[in-house]
Amino acid sequence: MNANPKFLAATAHVDDAAVKPLPNSRRIYVGPLRVPMREIAQSGGNPPLAVYDTSGPYTDPAAKIDIRKGLFPFRLNWIEARGDTLLLDGPSSAYGRKRLEDPKLAELRFELHRQPRRGKCVTQMHYAKKGIVTPEMEFIAVRENQRLISGLETQHAGQSFGAATPKEITPEFVRSEVARGRAIIPANINHPETEPMVIGRNFLVKINCNIGNSAVTSSIGEEVDKMTWAIRWGADTVMDLSTGKHIHETREWIIRNSPVPIGTVPIYQALEKVGGRAEELTWDVFRDTLIEQAEQGVDYFTIHAGVRLPFIPLTAKRMTGIVSRGGSIMAKWCLAHHRESFLYTHFEEICEIMAAYDVSFTLGDGLRPGSIHDAKDEAQLAELRTLGELAKVAWRHDCQVMIEGPGHVPMQLIKENVELQLKYCDEAPFYTLGPLTTDIAPGYDHITSAIGAAMIGWYGTAMLCYVTPKEHLGLPNKKDVKDGIMAYKIAAHAADLAKGHPGAQMRDNALSKARFEFRWQDQFNLGLDPDTAKEFHDETLPQEGAKVAHFCSMCGPHFCSMKITQDVRDYVEKGMHEKAVEFVKKGGELYTKT
Amino acid sequence: MNANPKFLAATAHVDDAAVKPLPNSRRIYVGPLRVPMREIAQSGGNPPLAVYDTSGPYTDPAAKIDIRKGLFPFRLNWIEARGDTLLLDGPSSAYGRKRLEDPKLAELRFELHRQPRRGKCVTQMHYAKKGIVTPEMEFIAVRENQRLISGLETQHAGQSFGAATPKEITPEFVRSEVARGRAIIPANINHPETEPMVIGRNFLVKINCNIGNSAVTSSIGEEVDKMTWAIRWGADTVMDLSTGKHIHETREWIIRNSPVPIGTVPIYQALEKVGGRAEELTWDVFRDTLIEQAEQGVDYFTIHAGVRLPFIPLTAKRMTGIVSRGGSIMAKWCLAHHRESFLYTHFEEICEIMAAYDVSFTLGDGLRPGSIHDAKDEAQLAELRTLGELAKVAWRHDCQVMIEGPGHVPMQLIKENVELQLKYCDEAPFYTLGPLTTDIAPGYDHITSAIGAAMIGWYGTAMLCYVTPKEHLGLPNKKDVKDGIMAYKIAAHAADLAKGHPGAQMRDNALSKARFEFRWQDQFNLGLDPDTAKEFHDETLPQEGAKVAHFCSMCGPHFCSMKITQDVRDYVEKGMHEKAVEFVKKGGELYTKT
Repeated sequence: MNANPKFLAATAHVDDAAVKPLPNSRRIYVGPLRVPMREIAQSGGNPPLAVYDTSGPYTDPAAKIDIRKGLFPFRLNWIEARGDTLLLDGPSSAYGRKRLEDPKLAELRFELHRQPRRGKCVTQMHYAKKGIVTPEMEFIAVRENQRLISGLETQHAGQSFGAATPKEITPEFVRSEVARGRAIIPANINHPETEPMVIGRNFLVKINCNIGNSAVTSSIGEEVDKMTWAIRWGADTVMDLSTGKHIHETREWIIRNSPVPIGTVPIYQALEKVGGRAEELTWDVFRDTLIEQAEQGVDYFTIHAGVRLPFIPLTAKRMTGIVSRGGSIMAKWCLAHHRESFLYTHFEEICEIMAAYDVSFTLGDGLRPGSIHDAKDEAQLAELRTLGELAKVAWRHDCQVMIEGPGHVPMQLIKENVELQLKYCDEAPFYTLGPLTTDIAPGYDHITSAIGAAMIGWYGTAMLCYVTPKEHLGLPNKKDVKDGIMAYKIAAHAADLAKGHPGAQMRDNALSKARFEFRWQDQFNLGLDPDTAKEFHDETLPQEGAKVAHFCSMCGPHFCSMKITQDVRDYVEKGMHEKAVEFVKKGGELYTKT
Repeated sequence: MNANPKFLAATAHVDDAAVKPLPNSRRIYVGPLRVPMREIAQSGGNPPLAVYDTSGPYTDPAAKIDIRKGLFPFRLNWIEARGDTLLLDGPSSAYGRKRLEDPKLAELRFELHRQPRRGKCVTQMHYAKKGIVTPEMEFIAVRENQRLISGLETQHAGQSFGAATPKEITPEFVRSEVARGRAIIPANINHPETEPMVIGRNFLVKINCNIGNSAVTSSIGEEVDKMTWAIRWGADTVMDLSTGKHIHETREWIIRNSPVPIGTVPIYQALEKVGGRAEELTWDVFRDTLIEQAEQGVDYFTIHAGVRLPFIPLTAKRMTGIVSRGGSIMAKWCLAHHRESFLYTHFEEICEIMAAYDVSFTLGDGLRPGSIHDAKDEAQLAELRTLGELAKVAWRHDCQVMIEGPGHVPMQLIKENVELQLKYCDEAPFYTLGPLTTDIAPGYDHITSAIGAAMIGWYGTAMLCYVTPKEHLGLPNKKDVKDGIMAYKIAAHAADLAKGHPGAQMRDNALSKARFEFRWQDQFNLGLDPDTAKEFHDETLPQEGAKVAHFCSMCGPHFCSMKITQDVRDYVEKGMHEKAVEFVKKGGELYTKT
């Protein structure tokens, strides 16, 4: 079933597809903190456009990439300068030590010559509450602002449903949002390779991309390739949901080579440790897993602490029961022991561990609906209220928190879902999977859910977890990963536009201008996926000459609506425009039968 | 550039891909009018599900298909029985006669051994206003009702924004909606092969699929294949937008073989007749084209009569000018002559022609925005108000009318677009292209626009014109046609769900139940595209055994959330559910630190 070549640490190398700059693009670094952006050059004297860039050093030809060494630890100086962490001798988790000492794993192991680090409370929220503006916050302020281009900055007024993004994002604004709990900066002190980013309703809408092998398929190398592929196309964070063998080693390779925050669901690995038998899970195994992963540098953990014993029977009448893996593991444990979930009863200890490494919470929606039929039922809402309570507990520990959301929701219920989340969880960032707006299209759930994702992003969701075309059917390959990311980049950007995020429309304007002026290459390059745009164009008109032609294959050379419009413009003298406005204002009713 | 084999009438044959029934599906005929539906069989004693079927006789193995003969003229008896039409000796348009008499066209020509027919006022609206329930209306009433399955009929309350669909759709309801102008039945008396369908906000949301060759590519055979392919996957109507050679002959082949209404934009062909020089268009050429096409059986015409001389200068300051082909043709004509559009000044004569054959209007939005930047500007709104005026003129002639809409609209402006259309046009069915919610994703505009389409359908749009991935880049091939249709079937169904269309959720429920019960084949077959769903599943788990396995490739055999849920259900005795409800009602706050 698995035809992949064996992965070996000694010969690991970067995926070729990840290291080529996008067409006519170069990675630039802005300001003293060297905030990366991608600058897209245009032809015909049109100014270059700078866009948010998640691709890391991979797309910088000047960067030396060796995945056996990992990325440069960008934030290390900042973390050390704060002077509130201790270097450990080695992993403090039992499991971490065991894996390190196992000679059979040598050929798979990433060789990290750096010790893990721990503090007491080293979260970005902790600093924010004290009024400290960290370098991470300064970096993010530069990163979130769009660099305006004269003549392209006009945009429609947005409708923000209570989100309030200032015209210019300052470091102090970032700090205040983090202190308020309305935004998080996932940035584990053991993942200094990250380029800081923020998740919150008053910032650009972000997307997460899930990767991870399962017991059935795929290897470490493939997962690292999926990560570099995902960030190339715009994944703001990546979750490693591996459930197969070598979870620990796979994760290490991914983190060391990732410039974006990495999230995990620790209960998956804990379950592997007890042989897949949920009822044998214990707090100790889970706690050791948290420490193991925190010391590797995972930036956020999904913790399904809202799956409480009394809520489980609420799912019995559902069409599709409990579909969250984490949720069903905890449900099985609770019922087997007829006891409250250990995630809930040990929640404050979990907070202490998270605070010591600055791992952010994403409070998992283990009881999320698995079908349109089950949307917004008692089980989901009971859990959501609990997640709101737990967010407040976490905030007392200065832990950063986001809240996970559905799943499957018909359009007319999406807004209500966001309103309830904002209310119950006091505006902690909402992080939703889709939602799918219908269940009738297996094979196309990147689309059924991009519809829901765009809407929920508009209404206030801070990060959208992507869905690939393989959802419900199989594990995504690289093509599926890209298809899922494209659908979600579209959803996130459509949401930014609709919210009226300052400067969001500039890229649309630049691309539309290029389109109207028949600058084909610029049109391709300004888009989310220049390769596909060019390929589609070339299918009909492959000649190089067609890329500068003032016509396209849709209408052909003899007739083109855009060409006619240019002729029309030439016709219209300046005076005509004012006359027409006046005519329309007067009511414009000229209809007479002739 | 065109590598297609030459199309010849003598050897024309149906596309193999169009004539195979979908997996586990059979075409059934309901009631005395033999209303077709597709029945999807399920395994494990689950009842079959009947779904709306646009595929025509092609998917019925009992039907004899010969595209050289065309489809059986299903409605012919009904039309004749009304006794209000005359058989003509032959085409009454000059152009139609010329083409018929041209010996060089013999090898391309469809041999129709039936004379064209004309009446005075033979529209479905005419009968509806007189209180007559036509067989077409009876047929539609059966077709629009979902056949409920006990246990699967529950659904969420919808939010309909003023749409009011009754629980059961009666022939009288169809009549009243058509009489009111709130719905149309596109059904030219010269296209008796159609299976009647309705377009209106109180019925299921429909989708249109555009096909058509251009001067640059494709042949008659390819266009017929695209039509049969499009209806197989759910196109409710098909527009033939050909602009190349042999427009007349291509159209004849499409109409004779189409069980769905065919729309065209007559100005495209009129322009060809004057050598592509817009300024040389005349009312006479256009009028002859209307008659030519009406006598072939085109069911609806896009008429850009709202592109009025005084509105044209309003487009001068746009980012992307006039992007509608029809709009730019008329703009060029108006400016060249500095005269009001002949479509506007001759509008009542157009109505008389349309009424004589029952060709429905779609009043074209020639000034629709071509970019997010230009959305909802003065030019668009001035034209929309004019379309509203013209709709009332058409209704006086008992002509059926729908109104075309944008195009490119950011999400926050979509609802307002619908509200203005409903107001200005007195609820005449709205027919929108997308709209695209962002311009930054060339190559993915089926997705940028499916988001907008789902929303605009929810708010009240009656028919959604699909957009393919090739939009702005090239002409769609069959794969693109299917991708576009899938995105739009999703959008239309998501809209039906959100509006609360009676019974709409049944298919979601059936598919979710199959998914939860690991009935893989049923899950594939109940979906919009069984082939792709199966193919995706098989990429990871190709063995036949995996299709009955109680696990999937996402979690693997040792751990599966759906399996755990089934275990959970077994655990939960009946009593537990009520206890949990009580707990949640009391506030459910048990959190105590342990």
